[in-house]
Amino acid sequence: MAKIGGPYACGLDAAADVIDGKWKPRILWALHYGPVRFGELRRKVAGVSEKMLIQQLRELEHDGIVHREIYREVPPKVEYSLTDLGQSLNEALLPLGDWGEKHMAHIVAVRG
Amino acid sequence: MAKIGGPYACGLDAAADVIDGKWKPRILWALHYGPVRFGELRRKVAGVSEKMLIQQLRELEHDGIVHREIYREVPPKVEYSLTDLGQSLNEALLPLGDWGEKHMAHIVAVRG
Repeated sequence: MAKIGGPYACGLDAAADVIDGKWKPRILWALHYGPVRFGELRRKVAGVSEKMLIQQLRELEHDGIVHREIYREVPPKVEYSLTDLGQSLNEALLPLGDWGEKHMAHIVAVRG
Repeated sequence: MAKIGGPYACGLDAAADVIDGKWKPRILWALHYGPVRFGELRRKVAGVSEKMLIQQLRELEHDGIVHREIYREVPPKVEYSLTDLGQSLNEALLPLGDWGEKHMAHIVAVRG
């Protein structure tokens, strides 16, 4: 820890660390409606490589955001879902998603 | 543009692009209470280098999030503030900041 109060300057800083990078917000969003299997998740998160998705899911699982459930079937079924914490994070991201939706044309014009 | 509908998969994706990186959420937060001069901003955004802060501010200005006002004084005074769009982005980030604040102990435990 860098200083008193932990390594984060504020709550937003801590939250940003948990969803850092290009893929995590999309993964959270893809899990919004319920448990999803790996292959389906990869289709929903367009453009992500298998290796990258596995790594991001591992980090989200480690951080308590995503739950991985293994069903002992043949072949084994693996489903990913949001934990309660992940659900609350997803809800906290909704206004930001709405903002992006509302200002999409502007953002595409200046950055796209 | 990569596909129909622009380069972004969803609103959250577009918003994430605008605040991408370690510093932009902190800069937005530092401007929350009103216009700030460069030196003061650098102190508020602890740990940022001068070069990095200049670059991030330029991008935020280009994206219409931050406004730079130059006062023709001797020595010249330069103040940064949020545009209306920047203000609305900051407000959309509040629930995420609250989430990070609320779960700070957990986040520090797993990532800090």
